Amino acid sequence: MLKDCNAGERFEGVLLINEWKEVPFRQKPGAYLSLTCQDSSGQMQGKMWNYDPQVLVLLKDQDIVRIKGVASEYRGTLDLTIETIKIVAEEDVDLSELLPSSPIAASELEKRLTVLIEKTSQRELRALLEQVFGHPEWGDAFRKAPAAMKVHQAYLRGLWEHSVRVAELVEEIAKYYPKMNRDLAVTGALLHDLGKIGEYNYERGIKFTTEGRLLGHIILGIELLTEEITKISDFPRELRSKLLHIITSHHGKYEWQSPKRPKLMEALVIHYADALDAELYQFEQAKENHPEDEWSPYIPSMERYIYLK
Amino acid sequence: MLKDCNAGERFEGVLLINEWKEVPFRQKPGAYLSLTCQDSSGQMQGKMWNYDPQVLVLLKDQDIVRIKGVASEYRGTLDLTIETIKIVAEEDVDLSELLPSSPIAASELEKRLTVLIEKTSQRELRALLEQVFGHPEWGDAFRKAPAAMKVHQAYLRGLWEHSVRVAELVEEIAKYYPKMNRDLAVTGALLHDLGKIGEYNYERGIKFTTEGRLLGHIILGIELLTEEITKISDFPRELRSKLLHIITSHHGKYEWQSPKRPKLMEALVIHYADALDAELYQFEQAKENHPEDEWSPYIPSMERYIYLK
Amino acid sequence: MLKDCNAGERFEGVLLINEWKEVPFRQKPGAYLSLTCQDSSGQMQGKMWNYDPQVLVLLKDQDIVRIKGVASEYRGTLDLTIETIKIVAEEDVDLSELLPSSPIAASELEKRLTVLIEKTSQRELRALLEQVFGHPEWGDAFRKAPAAMKVHQAYLRGLWEHSVRVAELVEEIAKYYPKMNRDLAVTGALLHDLGKIGEYNYERGIKFTTEGRLLGHIILGIELLTEEITKISDFPRELRSKLLHIITSHHGKYEWQSPKRPKLMEALVIHYADALDAELYQFEQAKENHPEDEWSPYIPSMERYIYLK
Amino acid sequence: MLKDCNAGERFEGVLLINEWKEVPFRQKPGAYLSLTCQDSSGQMQGKMWNYDPQVLVLLKDQDIVRIKGVASEYRGTLDLTIETIKIVAEEDVDLSELLPSSPIAASELEKRLTVLIEKTSQRELRALLEQVFGHPEWGDAFRKAPAAMKVHQAYLRGLWEHSVRVAELVEEIAKYYPKMNRDLAVTGALLHDLGKIGEYNYERGIKFTTEGRLLGHIILGIELLTEEITKISDFPRELRSKLLHIITSHHGKYEWQSPKRPKLMEALVIHYADALDAELYQFEQAKENHPEDEWSPYIPSMERYIYLK
Amino acid sequence: MLKDCNAGERFEGVLLINEWKEVPFRQKPGAYLSLTCQDSSGQMQGKMWNYDPQVLVLLKDQDIVRIKGVASEYRGTLDLTIETIKIVAEEDVDLSELLPSSPIAASELEKRLTVLIEKTSQRELRALLEQVFGHPEWGDAFRKAPAAMKVHQAYLRGLWEHSVRVAELVEEIAKYYPKMNRDLAVTGALLHDLGKIGEYNYERGIKFTTEGRLLGHIILGIELLTEEITKISDFPRELRSKLLHIITSHHGKYEWQSPKRPKLMEALVIHYADALDAELYQFEQAKENHPEDEWSPYIPSMERYIYLK
Amino acid sequence: MLKDCNAGERFEGVLLINEWKEVPFRQKPGAYLSLTCQDSSGQMQGKMWNYDPQVLVLLKDQDIVRIKGVASEYRGTLDLTIETIKIVAEEDVDLSELLPSSPIAASELEKRLTVLIEKTSQRELRALLEQVFGHPEWGDAFRKAPAAMKVHQAYLRGLWEHSVRVAELVEEIAKYYPKMNRDLAVTGALLHDLGKIGEYNYERGIKFTTEGRLLGHIILGIELLTEEITKISDFPRELRSKLLHIITSHHGKYEWQSPKRPKLMEALVIHYADALDAELYQFEQAKENHPEDEWSPYIPSMERYIYLK
Repeated sequence: MLKDCNAGERFEGVLLINEWKEVPFRQKPGAYLSLTCQDSSGQMQGKMWNYDPQVLVLLKDQDIVRIKGVASEYRGTLDLTIETIKIVAEEDVDLSELLPSSPIAASELEKRLTVLIEKTSQRELRALLEQVFGHPEWGDAFRKAPAAMKVHQAYLRGLWEHSVRVAELVEEIAKYYPKMNRDLAVTGALLHDLGKIGEYNYERGIKFTTEGRLLGHIILGIELLTEEITKISDFPRELRSKLLHIITSHHGKYEWQSPKRPKLMEALVIHYADALDAELYQFEQAKENHPEDEWSPYIPSMERYIYLK
Repeated sequence: MLKDCNAGERFEGVLLINEWKEVPFRQKPGAYLSLTCQDSSGQMQGKMWNYDPQVLVLLKDQDIVRIKGVASEYRGTLDLTIETIKIVAEEDVDLSELLPSSPIAASELEKRLTVLIEKTSQRELRALLEQVFGHPEWGDAFRKAPAAMKVHQAYLRGLWEHSVRVAELVEEIAKYYPKMNRDLAVTGALLHDLGKIGEYNYERGIKFTTEGRLLGHIILGIELLTEEITKISDFPRELRSKLLHIITSHHGKYEWQSPKRPKLMEALVIHYADALDAELYQFEQAKENHPEDEWSPYIPSMERYIYLK
Repeated sequence: MLKDCNAGERFEGVLLINEWKEVPFRQKPGAYLSLTCQDSSGQMQGKMWNYDPQVLVLLKDQDIVRIKGVASEYRGTLDLTIETIKIVAEEDVDLSELLPSSPIAASELEKRLTVLIEKTSQRELRALLEQVFGHPEWGDAFRKAPAAMKVHQAYLRGLWEHSVRVAELVEEIAKYYPKMNRDLAVTGALLHDLGKIGEYNYERGIKFTTEGRLLGHIILGIELLTEEITKISDFPRELRSKLLHIITSHHGKYEWQSPKRPKLMEALVIHYADALDAELYQFEQAKENHPEDEWSPYIPSMERYIYLK
Repeated sequence: MLKDCNAGERFEGVLLINEWKEVPFRQKPGAYLSLTCQDSSGQMQGKMWNYDPQVLVLLKDQDIVRIKGVASEYRGTLDLTIETIKIVAEEDVDLSELLPSSPIAASELEKRLTVLIEKTSQRELRALLEQVFGHPEWGDAFRKAPAAMKVHQAYLRGLWEHSVRVAELVEEIAKYYPKMNRDLAVTGALLHDLGKIGEYNYERGIKFTTEGRLLGHIILGIELLTEEITKISDFPRELRSKLLHIITSHHGKYEWQSPKRPKLMEALVIHYADALDAELYQFEQAKENHPEDEWSPYIPSMERYIYLK
Repeated sequence: MLKDCNAGERFEGVLLINEWKEVPFRQKPGAYLSLTCQDSSGQMQGKMWNYDPQVLVLLKDQDIVRIKGVASEYRGTLDLTIETIKIVAEEDVDLSELLPSSPIAASELEKRLTVLIEKTSQRELRALLEQVFGHPEWGDAFRKAPAAMKVHQAYLRGLWEHSVRVAELVEEIAKYYPKMNRDLAVTGALLHDLGKIGEYNYERGIKFTTEGRLLGHIILGIELLTEEITKISDFPRELRSKLLHIITSHHGKYEWQSPKRPKLMEALVIHYADALDAELYQFEQAKENHPEDEWSPYIPSMERYIYLK
Repeated sequence: MLKDCNAGERFEGVLLINEWKEVPFRQKPGAYLSLTCQDSSGQMQGKMWNYDPQVLVLLKDQDIVRIKGVASEYRGTLDLTIETIKIVAEEDVDLSELLPSSPIAASELEKRLTVLIEKTSQRELRALLEQVFGHPEWGDAFRKAPAAMKVHQAYLRGLWEHSVRVAELVEEIAKYYPKMNRDLAVTGALLHDLGKIGEYNYERGIKFTTEGRLLGHIILGIELLTEEITKISDFPRELRSKLLHIITSHHGKYEWQSPKRPKLMEALVIHYADALDAELYQFEQAKENHPEDEWSPYIPSMERYIYLK
């Protein structure tokens, strides 16, 4: 694993090339190869001084390669000086070793999801949850997709982790407000980001799909849900409207691409829990990435520095 | 018709009561009845000094009534002093005589719509247009719905009038930009506001439906279109995405409740033509309503006064 | 109590005059008296047709009076036709019968507050909480003050109710994020609005104080807390900074009058829980005030209509 | 021409130096020369490893030079390794070979402009158009100036191309709104950006003039037009105000530097057609520059990625 | 004078009618006349219970009338019960007795203006000031116009008062910044609002002119100044640009309708002094109008309450 | 001094290292050292090609070192090629030779401050000023601190220079508005930024303190002032509120981190004078730094280019 590699040591292993380019030297003819490599434990920058020009023709972004080289360090950052590079067929590789994934194990997430579903007593909502999360395609995709491109839980199982925690938060909060419908709130929380399974492609790294860019995960979620709801006989029209409203409004503001603001207690709480979990994730990450520091670097998505002590 | 009634004349006819209330006198016990009445030719304020208390129990907003009274004028505004009021059964009335409708006749709109459809040669788009506008429920609703609650074309056939004109504008503009796909642009223009048929209830006056308030016409339009597209075999996935993107982005900005900004030439032009037609409508209305004035009153939706000369 | 009074019945009792004015008749000389009256159960509009001119000299806003009159109704709203009015000395009245207060009893709030404090193990925070809530002046004021002028919990004990619930929410949420300091979060939550005890005057109705208008409750809270912290020996400087930062940043945004954005996990969660409780209160109020309706009236502070079903 | 030059080939020709600098080597003493070169067909980056220090004294930005060198390629981008460079006197060069210009020929633009003018029947507007476009100085400058610094039609004849197309669009749109004055709209459209002839200096590359920076093209346009209108006897005061209002308001919003919002139908349509043409130009450019791609790079002026299929 | 009239007293005098309307009674047929009257000392609301219907035909807004009636008071506000009303020819009246004007006498303003001009030593600026303020039409209008519609110095001589004070402030400030050009700053300050002489009509009350609404005082000021500058031989082009830039940018922000932001020290200081004087005027007014109060009413133009002690 | 060093000359002297890093070569193994050096006369970039690896362990940001090297120039910018570097103990150095400071001498600032204080006749304000500026800790810190991190007067004595000038401006302006309290305005102006002495650490370069980041100089100023005011017996409560309000509101807008907007004339003028002085400083700096240019480079804090002629 990349994270086990120390300065001065040799490295040999299978890596995913996130992107690469040929960089011309600034004061002499010629160029070197710069590659961003990753496995599930992290990323490292690689440099290759001598290479067969043939590699320029064969190599593509997101290729999987076997690499040999030596790690070297400049002030805490490791670089990989690459000696040989060889393309590997996808079928010979376990992708989960190349992509980062949630620190929470699938088995634990499954257990927590099951508890949330089983406590749902409203018949149609229970049926919908079982149908979606048991769906051969959507259920699988939901358990694999990341929660975001970059900002929070941008790794495999991230969507699952995020959705379960938002649902749990919503469930706790609902206890303090007796007028709130727990089952609607929890169902909405579990499904609020469902459209993300169509918004990202995450086979090798996380990319937007064309549908994701053209429509976004709110519209994609509406499409998926309307289709699934149709299959449940006698799903009450009003309940359907409320659930679709929760998806529609979960970003909370027009400027954040929600075409409606929350008009139900349940929609409001989901919006808050969603935003809170995404922001707290960034605090946690900053603390993990800078265990020694008093202040984080500037965090553009939050427009501030964070105090880490 | 109300608009034919002059000061001092008696009026007798069938009117729709938009809203009504009992207004207590300010310096003596008792109250009078204030009613907003309308027929297709306009609105008038009514006052009833003596009335059977029974009327308070029977009368509801949006009731249809037969009224006898006298019109009187204070500085150009007519009031109706009502003498008798009698509720009329809906089946005895032609609703189109009570609600305003587009100044453009249905026959002309039909002709212009037909021309736009017939010039569409891309097979699937042509099929979709024919299917939607020939749909027993949606086609009918589209030809009847208003284009907005208040701001523009807020009358029967308003959606039809607006959609046809936006499509015609888009078609003209497309001629100047050869990279634009005329058929996609015209189809998108005709369908951009389709969701409005579910956003408003316009049986008697224009009201938002609950689904309209919870989801809005963009989401409702997405639902309708995905359902219709499914019925067309081999509708290309990419064309479907483009069409849904046009619906999604036609307000042009996040703050105006579009969850995506226009990313296609066709989507951009539809957004512009839509906004332009809505704003020009207000100029036209202001000129019609104030034929003598140099300046309009303040127009809140445009945040300005308009010059009428 | 006003809320027990029905149309047509006589009323006699002690009321607080929120404001009053003499209203000239529009078409004859003379005027009548219009008064907004309240007791702890609600408000009612009063009208007095005949009155001793002397009353104009004696009566002041926020006066307490004994009133005799008759209630009458127009379409669901009750009016009080006042026959006699007599000023009452404050010492003869129990103010808690004239002002609304939290639906949650003081004894329950005290119990919940005690639990929160007793679970706080960090020595200095525990000491600070005991000192503030046991303070003869601040502790008392905190238990009496409203949480806001108008928008949420605008009644006696409102600040107490709001602060306890925010602290409880924060405590629940903290369980999901192990990096969060529960004691700091709960202490901050209980104290975040402390400055409100100086921002409002709530002897008779809720008014801003001059200091409240000039400085606001964030600055007033900073003043109070720095003074209290000074009394605790060895209060760590860093802990003090964090606590003051929580007060400073609890509105979350510059535009909402927080001069700093939350830079601690604990500050962020308090901001969210504060905003969430204030908004949910409005949902609950709307549901209570409009038990029959599908939609609330427009709620300016939330810029939307709320769905009540 | 630069665009005809392929990797590995020698190049010899006259180029305009847009800007140049001496770049110090990072790990040894000395430096090389980096130059941005252009002719009317495009730009290319040049590097000169050995050069006479004298060149640093002689060379200025915007100089015209004769260059010999060799083109080489790194992943699709061509660089010019320069061997010799020699300054050329301006009088020996045809500037139109060094600066890009509109893809639409001057003869075609002239024809379209003539048609627009000839269809203008309102006497004073016709006179104004003939006078401005026939003006020895302004007419010439208008036919030569670019339409913008960077964003749209940033080349010779760009202003002419843009103004003619905006006028044509406006003319088409006007047909759908009978209350609009076609002659005023077309005249306003042709003149709306007239001030740009004073805002940019475009002798060699496009730069802002000092007057352009201090006053902007709206104020400069007002100055030019008031001067020209003065020369036409009996130009109606009201028509003059309307025309000046069109110039003043054509950016549509205060934030976009229009001190007035459009208050005439004609001003509104010109604003929309102006913005639409500028944005569509960017779609067209993105499609031309990335014929193989599904998505454009991020376009800062539009704050989005564009779909190119 | 109206301000000398006390409750219960008779009033007889010449007044300007700002606006008037016939108000129908709410619970009986008929109507009364409501008129807003003013003379230079202030405004008063008038009511006329009995009137000759003929008056409705004759009376126009802004008419001058001779009125007889009685003042009566409700809680501090005086009303005028009008008995007779008679239209007066304008030539029989001194308008300055009907319109409010600056508290600073014309003679003092003239003296202060003269000092400012005489201290200006830069030849062309001195010439421009003498020419503009000595201009038979502009000089006169400048000395008469108000400084604003409503917000500040909305009375005769208000523009003069405001411009002189802004120039004096600018002169004082300039002393602290040696790089600033005092003559340019003072000239710009005296002329910054010159266009207001064309923006308002203030013959009888202050109204916007059509040119004022279509173009605004920045554009009108540019027109006036370019015309005046032309008459001064050898006025340096650069000085002209700077002066026009000061006019163009004096509102400081695009959103405040300045198409350019201040890019000269002199322009920046004028913008600040202009805004400061306008806001301080409102503080002074609030203190004068509410001598007894601790807090002003809400001031919409400043979005706040002002502390008056 | 660095500013006396010319291209080609040797340099030897004591410098402060602002920051440094090891930069890897791009096309060969190894790296060089890049250091930002400064003394009170300015900054210079240093490069060290050969260095003892030991230096990486010893050197820290903000270290003081004795440097020998040679200056060389590329197009007007000087670089220092460093030959030897040796760490120097702080006690052997006069820090004022390493940090820039106000161009205005301390003696002159002291004189101007004294004049301002001595003209203050209101007893408590005079006492407060003498106490704060005579305070052994705060008085000293105030005379040393910078006025800002980067934008204006970011050097030693900058806070002193800025505060005195703002007070002088305020004093001048107050003369034109008789309702303004000169003593309150001047006292507020001198103290408005007092909290900056705790917001920055400026021992070696200017850095934010942790308290500065968590609380900001408005809150820190409130803390300092409340503490100082407590020491003055009988300081009127209302005067204290006004002074604290001035600190609280001096940024003028919520978005600029003022939790209250100015509600006193004195607070308003201080806000304006503060902003004006900060902006004019940038004009002055731009003129000094670019004496030959017509236009400044883009100034991000002002979002514009400045005209320098």
